[in-house]
Amino acid sequence: MAKFPNDIILRNEHKIIFVVMDGLGGLPLSKGGQTEMETAKTPNLDKLVAENVCGCFDPLLPGVTPGSGPAHLSMFGYDALELPVGRGLLAALGIDFRVQPEDVCIRVNFCTLDKAGKITDRRAGRISDEENKRLLGIVREKLVAPKGVQVFLETVSEHRALMVLRSDQLDDDVADTDPQELNVRPLPARARGGKQSETTKVVEKLLEQVGEILSTADSPANFMLLRGFAKTKAMASFEEKWGCKAGAVAGYPMYRGLARLVGMEVVAGATEPAELAKATGKHLPDFDFVFVHFKYTDKKGEDGDFEGKVAQIEAFDAAVPAFASLDAAALVITADHSTPAKMAMHSWHPVPVLIVSELARPDEVKSFGERAMARGGLGRQPMMNLMPLVLAHAERLTKFGA
Amino acid sequence: MAKFPNDIILRNEHKIIFVVMDGLGGLPLSKGGQTEMETAKTPNLDKLVAENVCGCFDPLLPGVTPGSGPAHLSMFGYDALELPVGRGLLAALGIDFRVQPEDVCIRVNFCTLDKAGKITDRRAGRISDEENKRLLGIVREKLVAPKGVQVFLETVSEHRALMVLRSDQLDDDVADTDPQELNVRPLPARARGGKQSETTKVVEKLLEQVGEILSTADSPANFMLLRGFAKTKAMASFEEKWGCKAGAVAGYPMYRGLARLVGMEVVAGATEPAELAKATGKHLPDFDFVFVHFKYTDKKGEDGDFEGKVAQIEAFDAAVPAFASLDAAALVITADHSTPAKMAMHSWHPVPVLIVSELARPDEVKSFGERAMARGGLGRQPMMNLMPLVLAHAERLTKFGA
Repeated sequence: MAKFPNDIILRNEHKIIFVVMDGLGGLPLSKGGQTEMETAKTPNLDKLVAENVCGCFDPLLPGVTPGSGPAHLSMFGYDALELPVGRGLLAALGIDFRVQPEDVCIRVNFCTLDKAGKITDRRAGRISDEENKRLLGIVREKLVAPKGVQVFLETVSEHRALMVLRSDQLDDDVADTDPQELNVRPLPARARGGKQSETTKVVEKLLEQVGEILSTADSPANFMLLRGFAKTKAMASFEEKWGCKAGAVAGYPMYRGLARLVGMEVVAGATEPAELAKATGKHLPDFDFVFVHFKYTDKKGEDGDFEGKVAQIEAFDAAVPAFASLDAAALVITADHSTPAKMAMHSWHPVPVLIVSELARPDEVKSFGERAMARGGLGRQPMMNLMPLVLAHAERLTKFGA
Repeated sequence: MAKFPNDIILRNEHKIIFVVMDGLGGLPLSKGGQTEMETAKTPNLDKLVAENVCGCFDPLLPGVTPGSGPAHLSMFGYDALELPVGRGLLAALGIDFRVQPEDVCIRVNFCTLDKAGKITDRRAGRISDEENKRLLGIVREKLVAPKGVQVFLETVSEHRALMVLRSDQLDDDVADTDPQELNVRPLPARARGGKQSETTKVVEKLLEQVGEILSTADSPANFMLLRGFAKTKAMASFEEKWGCKAGAVAGYPMYRGLARLVGMEVVAGATEPAELAKATGKHLPDFDFVFVHFKYTDKKGEDGDFEGKVAQIEAFDAAVPAFASLDAAALVITADHSTPAKMAMHSWHPVPVLIVSELARPDEVKSFGERAMARGGLGRQPMMNLMPLVLAHAERLTKFGA
């Protein structure tokens, strides 16, 4: 997209509700069939589609399947290809860790080393969450943090954990210490170019202590492999970028974290459609923009559960009148990416976009489904174009040029 | 298009067949009529369209008519606007000359000079192919190549020939010596900025010899005008770019040459639809990607032969089941550009694109024709987007970001 002329952004009282039905787009199970959306009975969504404007947008680039991080950044109007969200940062967001700008976030795998210090299991036999917590408790207690560095250790699940180094002296230019193979030693901490740095020295010293502490813990997990060193990217906040004070209604930690990453305030943790609508109504007066995240469409898609996904779309449809009755200047219903039950994973297929607004120019589409909405008036565009379109429909943009 | 994130490319066993029906797109002969594609009876293609996904893509930019070189580069996923294929290089590809990276390729016109050395005919009376061959034979025999330079001379047709200078000391920064007007002398060889260089000195000496040799050959063609000095552009090979080992099934030299230009292996020279399908089936096991070139739709279009083009589309349709039965992960049927019989030349009109795959999200299009396919689920996009879409449909891309 050409650079957006930010000086046309207006601040006013017009409200925007931005609903993400995660992984909404799908596929028919077999040739000649219907998708999950097409199968679902959605009278409320159909009515909104018939009276408003829709399209099918590419989450990142045609053919490119996004992870949750880039998919959400793209919906929020950021160039996600230029702003990779590192694995460590995503791990932090995924457990709702409040990341500070100076934090270096690191994905940790507990592993097993033999007596020669070589890796025999990169996942330490997939220890339980409880064992993970017990071990982190021991390490936390005994670890002496280097001067000027705060060390946070948090359980994720099984052998997975998060390490965060908080210090204004460290950077995230550290290559993975996980060699991704067995019968070799973990790699020493080095910058991605291969050299040592102040940061790699700190990491080395920490790992030395970790090894000593874990050696006495009587566990198959006797060392840590570190991956995806990442700081928060320096990015404009959502409010700086789009002139909207934004709140988030989201129950799952990953999406709460992604909302916080762009400076949204997470105000409620609902997950069910009716609860999401209620929380949105409650908090809308305090914000210009409310991001609402509905997880279950993606969850059923990831499970390969076509009928379950259909049921979740129908369940959401039942709450649509509650959202519509909030009378926002623009109500958006879209998705971060497709998750066809047929594939049981994220896919590249373009995602449905519906903008409900008094100013929506109607198109010929009458039903809430991928093949119908692909013919909508918004056409096929990069998802990064959505935010300007939404602001326009909420009359939060003025004219460019005289 | 934003820079494609190459690290998401997978290498696996999934096969891609990429059929180019050259110059496929057309126009009705008169208002209210049907195009060549719409007129043709294509039950097999119609069935694939109905069950899969299609669109109409711009070969380069909206309104820009491409030559064969940029049109093919664009289909292969290169930015053809940034990678101009010089006229000399295209002349070499067009006669299946095996261009090496160090070759400077030059388009030659035999011309007639008067006694004062001024051009009286830029095409030497359009001498015959035989005369062209005779003259090149004489020049080849008598020419003393400069030290370290191999000189190749090949007949193209009539007054047209190809000169290739093979040397690791020469560059292609040489302006045309053809002044494009009569009653003036040919221009001296100079770099495009006007200066002399090692290369221009070599070219000057060669032309001096050529003039002397031809002066004794008893022909209206007594000198050569040189145009389009060009080396192969330094470009990533198709395999480096897209992770696919690629073979080409193409009968016409230009397309064999374009395939070689991006590092494809030309494995068969079929031209008829059934032969093309047979050759594709034979060679598919050895490649990830097979490019299949069908010439006759363009040929009939260039001839202004509407009915002939319709018949060629129908002939190709008859071979479609043979292609479909090869069970590639993705079967693509598209075109490099439109060649409407009404215009009897290449045009800028967007070209039909059909992707057949288990993962194609169906759209509402039921028939193989321009106006139907313009409403397809792939929408209207730059042709350069096609390769990522094809790789996605063949499951040869992984997720971007976590």
